[in-house]
Amino acid sequence: MTEITLKNPIPRSIWPKEGDEPFVQIIDQRFLPHESRVNDLKSTRDCERAIKDMEVRGAPLIGITAAFGMYFAAIESLRHDDRETCLNKKAGFLKLTRPTAVNLMWAVDKQMELANAHGFNEKLPEALWNNAIKLMEEDAEVCKKIGEYGLELIKEISAKKNGEPVNILTHCNAGSLAVIEWGTATAPIYQAYLQGINVHVWVDETRPRNQGANLTAYELGVANVPHTLIVDNAGGHLMQHGQVDICFVGCDRVTSTGDVANKIGTYLKALAANDNNLPFYVCLPSSTIDWEIKDGVSEIEIEERSDDEVRYIQGKESGEVKQVLICPESTAGYNIGFDVTPARLVTGLITERGICTASEEGLKKLFK
Amino acid sequence: MTEITLKNPIPRSIWPKEGDEPFVQIIDQRFLPHESRVNDLKSTRDCERAIKDMEVRGAPLIGITAAFGMYFAAIESLRHDDRETCLNKKAGFLKLTRPTAVNLMWAVDKQMELANAHGFNEKLPEALWNNAIKLMEEDAEVCKKIGEYGLELIKEISAKKNGEPVNILTHCNAGSLAVIEWGTATAPIYQAYLQGINVHVWVDETRPRNQGANLTAYELGVANVPHTLIVDNAGGHLMQHGQVDICFVGCDRVTSTGDVANKIGTYLKALAANDNNLPFYVCLPSSTIDWEIKDGVSEIEIEERSDDEVRYIQGKESGEVKQVLICPESTAGYNIGFDVTPARLVTGLITERGICTASEEGLKKLFK
Repeated sequence: MTEITLKNPIPRSIWPKEGDEPFVQIIDQRFLPHESRVNDLKSTRDCERAIKDMEVRGAPLIGITAAFGMYFAAIESLRHDDRETCLNKKAGFLKLTRPTAVNLMWAVDKQMELANAHGFNEKLPEALWNNAIKLMEEDAEVCKKIGEYGLELIKEISAKKNGEPVNILTHCNAGSLAVIEWGTATAPIYQAYLQGINVHVWVDETRPRNQGANLTAYELGVANVPHTLIVDNAGGHLMQHGQVDICFVGCDRVTSTGDVANKIGTYLKALAANDNNLPFYVCLPSSTIDWEIKDGVSEIEIEERSDDEVRYIQGKESGEVKQVLICPESTAGYNIGFDVTPARLVTGLITERGICTASEEGLKKLFK
Repeated sequence: MTEITLKNPIPRSIWPKEGDEPFVQIIDQRFLPHESRVNDLKSTRDCERAIKDMEVRGAPLIGITAAFGMYFAAIESLRHDDRETCLNKKAGFLKLTRPTAVNLMWAVDKQMELANAHGFNEKLPEALWNNAIKLMEEDAEVCKKIGEYGLELIKEISAKKNGEPVNILTHCNAGSLAVIEWGTATAPIYQAYLQGINVHVWVDETRPRNQGANLTAYELGVANVPHTLIVDNAGGHLMQHGQVDICFVGCDRVTSTGDVANKIGTYLKALAANDNNLPFYVCLPSSTIDWEIKDGVSEIEIEERSDDEVRYIQGKESGEVKQVLICPESTAGYNIGFDVTPARLVTGLITERGICTASEEGLKKLFK
């Protein structure tokens, strides 16, 4: 088990190790926050395993892991007579690791296009490596931009608070562990922190899978950003009592009218922010916008997941990670992954192109 | 370990065992839902231990346990020369078991008043036993009345649903385990169930202490009432999608204007009910009304509890009840026990005198 050491104070979820035989390292997210293991990815098979076994998660991160997988595939193909067929086959295996992950297909296809244009010679691996790094840096850059726009909102609040901390509430993990670096909802927070602004984050634990307690608390801790864990029930009370200044959340999908699908419970926090006249912002790369749909509540299909995620909770006891049953054996649970926050409850959408109102007009102004 | 057997399908939290040497039995709530132990209370010391160690919880239940404690104290006093001093001393010890529990003081004082009026003779224990049973039955009767008024609301919805289940959402445990029998929020549900109305309950797990998953799921299971466990984040989504017909919650305190202090997270569910035009009812015995205060959010002081309740969760693993850590070791939590739901979000208050609007006028009409 290797402890993570990072040059940048903002943790990354994946990073290349240059050298004679370059490879990739990832944080194995399955054991967070209790163990911070770093895994080496040195072959296509390593990348497949990392995606399939959920060592990595989050759409952009899965895509980038697969893009590096294509680099290893190209190296491995060099030993074969029919390099093109071999690479195509390995591309197919990579795509099968998480068949519903759109970014995964996209990244593998991007690399295959480059290979076809480049030709299957000894130089191909280097070209694919460089392209994977380019895709990775583009993703990091998008998040950095989101952070810069969101930072302005934090600055405005900070200016009114005379050095008192700006209290930010976030739900789930829309942090650097879900993308490459910066995160989406955490990007403005990290930027503010790096500029020396006094920030404090309320971290919703985010049942059932506790991504807040497991991942957001972990990465804010690594980056030294002041934060406090709360149960999902607490945010409303904090807002009623002036203990929240602004909310930042990520999202899984935004409709063309600004409705937001995000982790279950987001809607409740948006209602509370609205009831207390507090700003509620959703942070997203523009790739998240679904221009085809309008009404989030009726049109976005919500994933139902195993009720064991409700009935059991994972944690650490006597040095081991365990799952404990929290209800009677015979009790059934119902587990829905996401909810939809209507645009009317969203103060604004923060994208890599700037901030807009959560509306058709707002989105169209930014994305003509 | 004795399994509970109940004649009435609605579980009780405490019950007398008549006979030559009458005693009392309680459900030891510390191990629910994983173990349903029944403890015998046969002495003042047993009653003190049951209250102090939280084998029993909930204000009315603590009070009744102490009332029976006074019966045992009177028996034990018979052996002493100065029976009055002895009983007074034992009354004092009983009061010390939970010094902030108002019902505890009230019940012990009630019994002491009776003793003073009755005289400290051989007949006193029987008088105190009978009075404890009277107090207990009065409490059960109050809850039964709340249930009867609430039942009418369920009947109205059921009539419109053509046999489809009436879906009821509840938060925390305002069930029979918190009082003597029926519960407050669960009373209308039990009454409807006993009348053969098709009901289904969404049980909020109610972090941090999970009273929904531990207690409400348990007692609904014992009574055979159909129910499903959900995370606290899920209610809003269910309401948006027509999967909730009505909400019933209990409360810890109601202001003279109808603001409601209840378990943390109640406010978020009330907001969601309001946003979806769903009825949100608060069930309470009139003893819960605090006529001295008006504005709940600013006037009700909210208890802050240990952050370990946020950082750890209790559950069962390999046959044992364990506490697991759900966040990084170094992460701090913030733990507030209750929140206040403003009267404007409450459809009505259900009391033993009937239903009224959550307002000064509403409450005054019922309680002149």
